[in-house]
Amino acid sequence: MSQWKQIQQLDIKFLEQVDYFYDDNFPMEVRQVLATWIEGQDWETASNHESMAAVLFNNFLIQLERQCSQEQNFLHRHNLKRIYQQLQLKYKTNTLHMATIISSCLREERRIISTASMQEQGPLEKSLQN
Amino acid sequence: MSQWKQIQQLDIKFLEQVDYFYDDNFPMEVRQVLATWIEGQDWETASNHESMAAVLFNNFLIQLERQCSQEQNFLHRHNLKRIYQQLQLKYKTNTLHMATIISSCLREERRIISTASMQEQGPLEKSLQN
Repeated sequence: MSQWKQIQQLDIKFLEQVDYFYDDNFPMEVRQVLATWIEGQDWETASNHESMAAVLFNNFLIQLERQCSQEQNFLHRHNLKRIYQQLQLKYKTNTLHMATIISSCLREERRIISTASMQEQGPLEKSLQN
Repeated sequence: MSQWKQIQQLDIKFLEQVDYFYDDNFPMEVRQVLATWIEGQDWETASNHESMAAVLFNNFLIQLERQCSQEQNFLHRHNLKRIYQQLQLKYKTNTLHMATIISSCLREERRIISTASMQEQGPLEKSLQN
């Protein structure tokens, strides 16, 4: 199961934590429509390598453009088009920054999933692990 | 049929014109989720009457908050919450401005629907009208 699918199955109290770190720097709409592709890239390494970040940024725009052209729903297509324009403008001269933001969001998601999973375990299972 | 439903049934060339005037000042997401309520208010009169604009703004926020609380989809709820916060901040000291923007969007929609309807009529019907 993709990390994003796991996120969506969390309790509301964990979803509210996810809400908190998705904003215009990395809109949740993009996280959702490109979920599998995003999770397949090494954003952490890219956040320290300018040329790799530039290639990922370029591929990211290609993926997003493809989603726009395939989207049949008028409102969703409108939103994706606007996000494409905003992110292209925001990161075209600072692709390292985008890689850092995406890497950080994915890390935060993993932390929340892990916390939720620990809280779901009963006291007996926890004591057996310790 | 609501005006917003008529808009969604237009050809792509007309939808692109609608795309153009929906931005963060009046997000299309709000136009869609509150379509019937929005079309039932007199935004044009409100854009010239401060107290009426203030009442409409307050009711608008109540409607939007209700939509947020009823929305089951995580991504849509996240988007509506963010839009609520942004619009509250943007217009709380300038409700006339919001009324003017909404009034202008609705007027533009009517103009586009009317143009589309004229272009759909054949040359014979047009000449009979003239």
